Amino acid sequence: MTRASICTIGDEILIGQVVDTNSSHISRALNSLGIRVTRMISIGDEHDIIIEGIESELRRNEIVIVTGGLGPTKDDITKHALAELSGTQSYRTDERQLEIIHRILSSRGLDILDINIAQASVPQTCEVIPNKLGTAPIMVFRFPEERFGHKATLYSLPGVPFEALGALQDISDDIRKHYQISDIYHKTLMTFGIAESALSKMIEEWEDSLPQDMHLAYLPDALTGVRLRLSIYGGSKEEQEARIEAEIAKLRQILGDAIYSEHDDRQETCIGRMLAAKGKTVSAAESCTGGMISSLFTSIPGSSEYYLGSVTSYANSVKTGVLGVPAEIIEKHGAVSEECVRAMAEGVRRITGSDFAVATSGIAGPGGGSEEKPVGLVWIGVSSQNGTEAYRMVFRGDRKRNIDRFAANALNILRKKIKNELNY
Amino acid sequence: MTRASICTIGDEILIGQVVDTNSSHISRALNSLGIRVTRMISIGDEHDIIIEGIESELRRNEIVIVTGGLGPTKDDITKHALAELSGTQSYRTDERQLEIIHRILSSRGLDILDINIAQASVPQTCEVIPNKLGTAPIMVFRFPEERFGHKATLYSLPGVPFEALGALQDISDDIRKHYQISDIYHKTLMTFGIAESALSKMIEEWEDSLPQDMHLAYLPDALTGVRLRLSIYGGSKEEQEARIEAEIAKLRQILGDAIYSEHDDRQETCIGRMLAAKGKTVSAAESCTGGMISSLFTSIPGSSEYYLGSVTSYANSVKTGVLGVPAEIIEKHGAVSEECVRAMAEGVRRITGSDFAVATSGIAGPGGGSEEKPVGLVWIGVSSQNGTEAYRMVFRGDRKRNIDRFAANALNILRKKIKNELNY
Repeated sequence: MTRASICTIGDEILIGQVVDTNSSHISRALNSLGIRVTRMISIGDEHDIIIEGIESELRRNEIVIVTGGLGPTKDDITKHALAELSGTQSYRTDERQLEIIHRILSSRGLDILDINIAQASVPQTCEVIPNKLGTAPIMVFRFPEERFGHKATLYSLPGVPFEALGALQDISDDIRKHYQISDIYHKTLMTFGIAESALSKMIEEWEDSLPQDMHLAYLPDALTGVRLRLSIYGGSKEEQEARIEAEIAKLRQILGDAIYSEHDDRQETCIGRMLAAKGKTVSAAESCTGGMISSLFTSIPGSSEYYLGSVTSYANSVKTGVLGVPAEIIEKHGAVSEECVRAMAEGVRRITGSDFAVATSGIAGPGGGSEEKPVGLVWIGVSSQNGTEAYRMVFRGDRKRNIDRFAANALNILRKKIKNELNY
Repeated sequence: MTRASICTIGDEILIGQVVDTNSSHISRALNSLGIRVTRMISIGDEHDIIIEGIESELRRNEIVIVTGGLGPTKDDITKHALAELSGTQSYRTDERQLEIIHRILSSRGLDILDINIAQASVPQTCEVIPNKLGTAPIMVFRFPEERFGHKATLYSLPGVPFEALGALQDISDDIRKHYQISDIYHKTLMTFGIAESALSKMIEEWEDSLPQDMHLAYLPDALTGVRLRLSIYGGSKEEQEARIEAEIAKLRQILGDAIYSEHDDRQETCIGRMLAAKGKTVSAAESCTGGMISSLFTSIPGSSEYYLGSVTSYANSVKTGVLGVPAEIIEKHGAVSEECVRAMAEGVRRITGSDFAVATSGIAGPGGGSEEKPVGLVWIGVSSQNGTEAYRMVFRGDRKRNIDRFAANALNILRKKIKNELNY
């Protein structure tokens, strides 16, 4: 199987001020070509470190994908290092990229600086794939078998995430042309509500009985729950997919409705699909989740078809004034209470006119908890014409983690209510 | 200077289904100790790959921090690999960690499974730092100079991000005890509204005149703008901080009010600080940003002091019904218009009673644009008792990037208005 490594260059990653999200997108693209990503590395913006680091990856892998520093102020170092690595000191200007640079900058009303023009200059040893989305070109360096013990290709992508993603199709096409790629087949089941250790116990026997060539991965995440991914490399499409499907059928028996998607969809996507299919709508009233549920809904393209909107009622005056929560409820039971979250869900359903509504009120921390109402406590309410229900849950974590869990569990409860009431 | 490498183990990262956020937190902690993180790597859940990968990092660095697979189903592979790497095949049970495992699981009302108990079992060769936040212990392996050419320490942290972060203080204390650490001094300026290439041109002369031992990093981000980080290793605290301050003073002259923080604060933090100091409040009306602005405000602990809440008016009926935007405005000018965004800002200020308000209406894409109103167009409105203003901006990017940029620019416009009107 063809092996690949993804190298990210940039001090900003090593000092911890930027999280590398490019590598994850790139590895997904490579995986879907059946290429095994064996390593990802991040190294600093220094000539010698870049050369040593990339050479070491090229010895281990047939394909190395490099995403450079972030933008025009960084490109030079990476480019000179790649030139030296590929045995040249001479450069040429790529006219196609130069034209794109002119077009992009003038469309944004910006002056064209020397620093921008210099981006079209590339080492003589590389092939160029023009980058239509930005100013830095995609560079391809090919190394003969003698150099690293196997034919190797180095792809250098722009560091700006939006541009790096845009380059992936071109890179994939080039890889298909130059490598014999083995296919990968996989299926992902999304589960929610069972902790990883309990889940692994439930499916232990099934997992132990899996054929040797199938691989199961557990991928827990506060927002999406535990993803289970079953995969296999090589073989014929029909046969392998049928084999995976046979194993998945057994898993369905064990896990039942803890499985919410078999297509790697998020909960907000599943909710949207059900609502759109039945012509129904939803709204949200958020206190402790602070807009997170609304953000998740609206992250899905086309969500305006079924998502009407939300009220973040952070202050009690907004709970009473905008959502119409009776002031007596807050006085008597507090804002973090069953009564309040029920009134919030009913209130937002009334003022938006939505078919369904979800509401949250809790204590994300770090401050604000008490013995009776600890940090990590959340009340979740869901409402429809068939009635309103409320659920109490307690989590432990920091503020961000608590907000994520509150929002994810609210979506899970809402999803079940919608599935049930719409008979989806 | 002491060098470190951060190794993340887990197929879930290499297949691109999980983004590694641990490494960024760990590297920040190491940097603040004056330890230079030279590499970050991610490798798969395989015995031989783990051993080869970690050995290769131990040869290059004095400190290697490993964060394992994610949770009880993965620990075994990493643990056995570390045992072999450290020359043992025998294990012992750490009683302190076993006690924590019992306490955590019983507090959550969960049965204690064999798989949980096995987590307290560690290779004979390691020291244990109990992990109070989770079931997997922190393991410390010390290697003599003969092994890798320098004294080396391997720290194995739990993979769950919340627990890995919790372990950092203990790790830092251990590193202080065993290594002579050189200090690092740095200052970060947060800028907004100037593109990286233009910024680098503006400060080119200043940057070229920097002393050899100072290092400038550009860290662009859609949400925070371009961070400029000036740093220096070693020397005495007073002297080095004064030297950095002298350079920063020059930079202040050049960049003026494009600088919004000198303390690595985000815009929402700066806004909150001004409002809290003056006893004022803010609210938001969001259409295209879908809850993102509200989420950013509420991500800050203590934001309930000044943030009243928001309305996500995704549907036009919510713009008219809840925010009181006149239906004629939407009919005549459309929802993405100066008139609509002004009415949204005024509307949310009225219904929440806040002193300031910000509103957004735009087209995040991918669909929905026209020649007159393209994808990437946003109207941003800000309102206070002194009046309402609206601004039109156009960006290019995918849906997520557009939403981030819309929200960041709305916060920037709001921040300037607040700063100006409160004379902060």
